[in-house]
Amino acid sequence: MRAALPRHTRAWYILATSDELTRAGDKPLARELFGKPLVLFRGKDGTAGALLDRCPHRNVPLSLGRVVKNRLECAYHGWQFDSAGVCGFIPSLAGPSEGRGRRAPALAVRERQGFVWVYGAFDEEPRSEPHRFEKIDSPGYTTVSRQVEAGGTLCSTLENALDVPHTAFLHRGLFRTESRGITISAKVRATAQRVEVEYIGEPRPPGIVGKILSPSGGMVTHYDRFLLPSIAQVEYKIGEENHLLVDSVMTPVSDFVTRIYAVVSYKMRIPGFILKPALEPLAMRVFAQDARILERQSETIKRFGGEYFMSTEIDIIGKHILRLLKAAEAGESTPDESHEVALIV
Amino acid sequence: MRAALPRHTRAWYILATSDELTRAGDKPLARELFGKPLVLFRGKDGTAGALLDRCPHRNVPLSLGRVVKNRLECAYHGWQFDSAGVCGFIPSLAGPSEGRGRRAPALAVRERQGFVWVYGAFDEEPRSEPHRFEKIDSPGYTTVSRQVEAGGTLCSTLENALDVPHTAFLHRGLFRTESRGITISAKVRATAQRVEVEYIGEPRPPGIVGKILSPSGGMVTHYDRFLLPSIAQVEYKIGEENHLLVDSVMTPVSDFVTRIYAVVSYKMRIPGFILKPALEPLAMRVFAQDARILERQSETIKRFGGEYFMSTEIDIIGKHILRLLKAAEAGESTPDESHEVALIV
Amino acid sequence: MRAALPRHTRAWYILATSDELTRAGDKPLARELFGKPLVLFRGKDGTAGALLDRCPHRNVPLSLGRVVKNRLECAYHGWQFDSAGVCGFIPSLAGPSEGRGRRAPALAVRERQGFVWVYGAFDEEPRSEPHRFEKIDSPGYTTVSRQVEAGGTLCSTLENALDVPHTAFLHRGLFRTESRGITISAKVRATAQRVEVEYIGEPRPPGIVGKILSPSGGMVTHYDRFLLPSIAQVEYKIGEENHLLVDSVMTPVSDFVTRIYAVVSYKMRIPGFILKPALEPLAMRVFAQDARILERQSETIKRFGGEYFMSTEIDIIGKHILRLLKAAEAGESTPDESHEVALIV
Repeated sequence: MRAALPRHTRAWYILATSDELTRAGDKPLARELFGKPLVLFRGKDGTAGALLDRCPHRNVPLSLGRVVKNRLECAYHGWQFDSAGVCGFIPSLAGPSEGRGRRAPALAVRERQGFVWVYGAFDEEPRSEPHRFEKIDSPGYTTVSRQVEAGGTLCSTLENALDVPHTAFLHRGLFRTESRGITISAKVRATAQRVEVEYIGEPRPPGIVGKILSPSGGMVTHYDRFLLPSIAQVEYKIGEENHLLVDSVMTPVSDFVTRIYAVVSYKMRIPGFILKPALEPLAMRVFAQDARILERQSETIKRFGGEYFMSTEIDIIGKHILRLLKAAEAGESTPDESHEVALIV
Repeated sequence: MRAALPRHTRAWYILATSDELTRAGDKPLARELFGKPLVLFRGKDGTAGALLDRCPHRNVPLSLGRVVKNRLECAYHGWQFDSAGVCGFIPSLAGPSEGRGRRAPALAVRERQGFVWVYGAFDEEPRSEPHRFEKIDSPGYTTVSRQVEAGGTLCSTLENALDVPHTAFLHRGLFRTESRGITISAKVRATAQRVEVEYIGEPRPPGIVGKILSPSGGMVTHYDRFLLPSIAQVEYKIGEENHLLVDSVMTPVSDFVTRIYAVVSYKMRIPGFILKPALEPLAMRVFAQDARILERQSETIKRFGGEYFMSTEIDIIGKHILRLLKAAEAGESTPDESHEVALIV
Repeated sequence: MRAALPRHTRAWYILATSDELTRAGDKPLARELFGKPLVLFRGKDGTAGALLDRCPHRNVPLSLGRVVKNRLECAYHGWQFDSAGVCGFIPSLAGPSEGRGRRAPALAVRERQGFVWVYGAFDEEPRSEPHRFEKIDSPGYTTVSRQVEAGGTLCSTLENALDVPHTAFLHRGLFRTESRGITISAKVRATAQRVEVEYIGEPRPPGIVGKILSPSGGMVTHYDRFLLPSIAQVEYKIGEENHLLVDSVMTPVSDFVTRIYAVVSYKMRIPGFILKPALEPLAMRVFAQDARILERQSETIKRFGGEYFMSTEIDIIGKHILRLLKAAEAGESTPDESHEVALIV
């Protein structure tokens, strides 16, 4: 048995923020996706390009080079490549520069809402468009973006972001406290593109987070969603006026490294300038606890040569993530499905 | 040809001192045996438990968790395991907690004379009991215990502890000096459980050690013994009143790491409070020299992809160690054997 | 496809300077060739010996030992080996010390012009003699020797030392500047032992180096040569009075580590005491740039599991290096060959 490492390359992943790429100027950015080194650069015309980070000539990383006009120049012999990977100039050479073997494999790029997305399959025409962050520009909403890196597989990191039972233990006292013995119901709805879990009967969280979110208490509408290829979406509505939408878009950097671009949009009774200073350190502490566990989980999986996971019915969303990713990787579709699970909180 | 790595798991090995485990309180101890990560914990009732250090649920190390009553609780989702490895509680789960796949493999544990021993085979009933330190509580004897770690295989570390010829070189001036050309006789007696070498005609050691042990000189009774599964025993009698017994119980942590729990019992003319300050730094210096050699030997073996050892008749005990361990691993028995070897000291 | 790693062992390589070995005294030097650990020592009679760095007894590195008379003594049990690898003494052993399995594999050694050379094949009679540095003792010439280590394969490091087009990019402003669009001709002459490239019509280098070498300008006679097994030779004649000969003798330490012993002999109009302080920092800066590229190239090759090089006609010398080394390794000979290539500088 091996670690769950589906590689759904025919999909969009974030490699950088627009700001990072702009700030880099004529220096390209070295990135990694599915364990493959990539180089990201912005031509003088503003267009972003993404190539395999290896010069076809002598296999030096192109990320050591610099941007010259709209092309990326290799630091070793000065070969120049455009955003399609075509070699447009070879210094000292009397003949033509272009040639089949002289191409650098290229990825399609889209720049949207402040993020630079690439389509994970080399030299292919994308069959879809990147995810849109729904509330990023909506009136009344505040949006905060952050990125962090976790030492876990894509599947483990996604499951961690969407798993409810661990919060009572790992994040003891932050999200939740010890169980109060209340049985709630989780309604699971899976399609070929996503899985949604709706929690019915959930009381206001009793920890610090709950007190900040809803000082007056009240029932909670809570959805956890996995959206192909790598998005963990958590949505909370508390009362009429409070709405929180967290999109954690994950980049499978390599087998055991996952980068998370989190976009948090919220509309709250409490003004953002009060909420933010309280929530951000809290979120970072929660993430640090998760990151530590994911890293130690990865070590154990590597040491034993694979995952040996034993699930129960309350491991609601993990198996769906794996099933959808494997089907997507194989170009197949999964049938719609729904069921209900009891959960003690 | 490979490194000599017999794995005799159906036997007892020390994983910690009783003190270490008690001091850890409700935090478990992470340990390793034959390259397998283990977790050692003491329940509130005082009983020690040893489990494979991997939660069967999501493969996080159980050693990240804490002791709750008599069970060990995983840090990620709070699953709880008793010292037999049975899962007794799963938070948030409405149904029963126990289940075949929810067990953590367990090792039998014995706590004796201040040490915590485990039987190296998972989920098996021990067929033997741990080694007893003979003089630990004997009147007139002083006992000192120390633990150190060596970067050698179990076999190389055992051989090093029982090898006489190397002491004149590696420990030049400490144990022995350059050869004085005296021929002595080594009588070897091997059974299925142990090998004993008795040195006949050995003069008092001429180095510092000899001067401390026996200021007035005199003949020496000297035995070196290997006791299955991993004990190097050195016994010296100098004159009527001096007796020294060193049991080095070795734990095969991983292929090239061996932990040594040394228990030194002695009865000497010179009072212990004088002897101890002189002997301990000396012993540590000897060990540091051995440890350096074992580490470099391991590096060389790994680099060449195996051991290529060329022995002579004065490599008395090494081949017996390997033969006994291999037979024991296969559940076989070796015939009794005895012979005599000449040795120039 | 794999990295280009021909292993031409039946040839001479430098392992140390004579000075280094003399300064080591009775401590041997640990070295490496084609990934094999070696030990180099000088007996009390002044003769150098080179053995596999592993005692045949218990596989401890012999380089931990010391020289005793004309033999190398192992630090563990004191076995002693002469420069032919024969075991001449085993302490404590009553019988004879010599024996077939007790030998340490040995390499032929030559000490010439201040360097210690070994023949790369164990226990073989050399079929050739080491390279001679032509101008090292010639009147009117100044000679400077330096050694540096590069993180590249032997072939990549040789190609780098003899490649002209990269200098305009990697060493921008040092050797050359941006292209001036002058077409020159490179005449290639290959035999079974060497490849020579003569550059016809090359103007004085425009960078700093050019200004120092030839303040008054003038045409340049420039040869780049690869000499089997591992020598990159660069020769410049500028005007009548200036002559520069750089022999970079390379030692294939391991697959991706190459040690370079550079011997620079020159005869210049400008006196050496003025030239040297200017040239040495410049050469070191050029080397640092090359070393960085070679190291990153190696990383990329390892990461992708092999070299994927795409050459053009101006990659003049690399393919010859590989062809000659492969033929030499197989004990074959390559036919003479010559052609001409146009190059824009």
